[in-house]
Amino acid sequence: MNSAEIITIGDELLIGQTVDTNSAWISMQLSMRGIRVNRITSISDRRDEIISALDEALRRVSLVLVTGGLGPTSDDITKETLAEYFGSQLVMNEEVLAEVTERITRRNLEMNENNRRQALVPECCRVLLNRAGTAPGMLFEKNSKKVISMPGVPSEMKYIMQEHVLPMVTGMAGDTTIIHRNIMTYGTFEAKLAERLEEFERELPAVIKLAYLPSHGVIKLRLTGTGGNARQLGLMMDGQIRKLYTIIPDVIYGEGEITLEEKVGSLLLNKNLTVSTAESCTGGKIASLITSVPGSSAWFKGSVVAYDNSIKTGMLGVDPEIIRKQGAVSEETAAAMASGVRRLTGTDFAVAVTGIAGPTGGTPEKPVGTVWIAIASGRGIITEKQRFADDRLINISRSAHSALNLLRKQIISY
Amino acid sequence: MNSAEIITIGDELLIGQTVDTNSAWISMQLSMRGIRVNRITSISDRRDEIISALDEALRRVSLVLVTGGLGPTSDDITKETLAEYFGSQLVMNEEVLAEVTERITRRNLEMNENNRRQALVPECCRVLLNRAGTAPGMLFEKNSKKVISMPGVPSEMKYIMQEHVLPMVTGMAGDTTIIHRNIMTYGTFEAKLAERLEEFERELPAVIKLAYLPSHGVIKLRLTGTGGNARQLGLMMDGQIRKLYTIIPDVIYGEGEITLEEKVGSLLLNKNLTVSTAESCTGGKIASLITSVPGSSAWFKGSVVAYDNSIKTGMLGVDPEIIRKQGAVSEETAAAMASGVRRLTGTDFAVAVTGIAGPTGGTPEKPVGTVWIAIASGRGIITEKQRFADDRLINISRSAHSALNLLRKQIISY
Repeated sequence: MNSAEIITIGDELLIGQTVDTNSAWISMQLSMRGIRVNRITSISDRRDEIISALDEALRRVSLVLVTGGLGPTSDDITKETLAEYFGSQLVMNEEVLAEVTERITRRNLEMNENNRRQALVPECCRVLLNRAGTAPGMLFEKNSKKVISMPGVPSEMKYIMQEHVLPMVTGMAGDTTIIHRNIMTYGTFEAKLAERLEEFERELPAVIKLAYLPSHGVIKLRLTGTGGNARQLGLMMDGQIRKLYTIIPDVIYGEGEITLEEKVGSLLLNKNLTVSTAESCTGGKIASLITSVPGSSAWFKGSVVAYDNSIKTGMLGVDPEIIRKQGAVSEETAAAMASGVRRLTGTDFAVAVTGIAGPTGGTPEKPVGTVWIAIASGRGIITEKQRFADDRLINISRSAHSALNLLRKQIISY
Repeated sequence: MNSAEIITIGDELLIGQTVDTNSAWISMQLSMRGIRVNRITSISDRRDEIISALDEALRRVSLVLVTGGLGPTSDDITKETLAEYFGSQLVMNEEVLAEVTERITRRNLEMNENNRRQALVPECCRVLLNRAGTAPGMLFEKNSKKVISMPGVPSEMKYIMQEHVLPMVTGMAGDTTIIHRNIMTYGTFEAKLAERLEEFERELPAVIKLAYLPSHGVIKLRLTGTGGNARQLGLMMDGQIRKLYTIIPDVIYGEGEITLEEKVGSLLLNKNLTVSTAESCTGGKIASLITSVPGSSAWFKGSVVAYDNSIKTGMLGVDPEIIRKQGAVSEETAAAMASGVRRLTGTDFAVAVTGIAGPTGGTPEKPVGTVWIAIASGRGIITEKQRFADDRLINISRSAHSALNLLRKQIISY
């Protein structure tokens, strides 16, 4: 078995209220394990649609992953339809009921009919326990074909995939070796990176493909190798990755799925250093990214979000004269914010960002997207000016990521 | 004609490299014009796949919108396959050629074979000029069924939709009126909400459907009405929404697509009030949400992210005895953090959160997911204890949203 299909169920997908991100995530997981996704189909919460989509998919492949339509409310009919499709009855599953009861009572709530209904499952299925929510996953097998039903909530779907489905499908692909390797880069543009890698791409062995995956300014370079001998293919890919390090050493920050905030965290942890932030236009985004990493209390002490100038001068001790003369968005203000928060928190590093996120507030000299970043440490203060785009949320995200990247470089050379 | 299907073409969709956002956008546009999207199918850049997906879709509906596979490189074969499917030849279209030449030379680039190939189109199609890129849209008609092919680049697809397709399909739906209305709720669970709305749902007129769309603790209730007379249907839906306000007044926070942070912002703006935050386990997330809203400098002054206890006692002035006796995660600490940051920033409201986001740090008395929220204002301090789940990122997000919701209630009654 080396191909599969995905069916996502939900009226919200067909009226454009929800973007189907589940399919891309599932496809990537399967693809990394050598299973080709043949087709993705999104349908509404209707019995006939579900049955015909299942029929069609099972004619083409032997593994069908279904998400959505498992909520406790009456618009969700996937479970009932699957029971009917596989000629089975809904029965109360005691293990699921215990799980659901535990989840509900832990939150000091009372079990009701809807919660109890979550523990009803088709008698013929194998239950895939869901510890991230109340709707269990279900595995159906018939004529050596498999249908797996999961909730549409991404965190619950991912839990069931990781706990139950991926261990089951790993190895299903048979002999074909597929190796994916990611090189994470920051600080350049896709077109620019492609230009620098033109020769590299041309000289790649036929069994290795390169893809550019940009997100929030991070560009993930994914090398995918396909071939018979895993060891040989692995060595070949190692060689290509070494080559990448010689061509674009300035923009590579890590390998694997690592984020900039994870990289910064591991560098600080290894060197036993700490950081704090002083944020104006990023509004707490950098602190929020840093603290999204488990264990970050070891390297992060705190932050002052100085949105209003009175906080910059009052709490951070920025000289009002600097703001009056140079403006709140200036190299001098960024530097003073960084040293101010470093003094207050006593950290080894301090990151400060001040800029114009937009949509308003720009001037001809300082248009929307102008951002000053400063990093203070025992070695002094370094600053960097950036000019991003017109979109507020993109500007905030890019500013935060650029600040993390600048911090990363400073930690490395510390 | 009142139903359509979407086919998105591209290997990148089936290996999870790209999330298909085009389908949701197209679906929303069609749905707002009364055209129901019956199915969305994603397939790879393969001739057989394209032909069978077209065949199947055209058996079900009379309008099929296709995106992707129109790039200049050899892996894109949609145009050739459509020419074959409709029994037509590729011919050079002079109007498209002139457009492409103009675009390329404007960028000081030279026309090459790949660019010229973009101007080849099937003889039988009507060209839908693309001024946002080089690949033209194409309209095919056969047996009073329509197939429209557009590039997969979102900005180019949207240009062709807005310039050519939407004007054409508006009115195609005939008499069918479709009205969507969203009611935004926070502070309850889907199962609980469904229980409270059981009778409401049972009594809904047949032409109105209710859907529950949960995300980050926010549950969007979507009422969809389908019927002949727009005014009558609108009045009927108004009545149902009024009814919802009588059944679940405590959890409704707004209508439309509004987020909690937008609602909080508009309430503060209307009452000319300001807010600051003191954050421990949320690590700046609340400030980050508040400042994601354009114009938030009018109501948000700043924040202290007090991750380390030294920041809680030092900057926020929390009595070290409170932390020693009650712990950093306690009602007393949350309250002291809130009054501390309110004093420092001089805002009308201050929000404080302290909790255990996990995965480590839990104890039997204070397990992972335990969170204390405090809101300080001129009227004193109110507090709330929450117990969330085991996932770090979910705990952070829920804590931030619960704090915003508690703040929202306080502003309303202020």
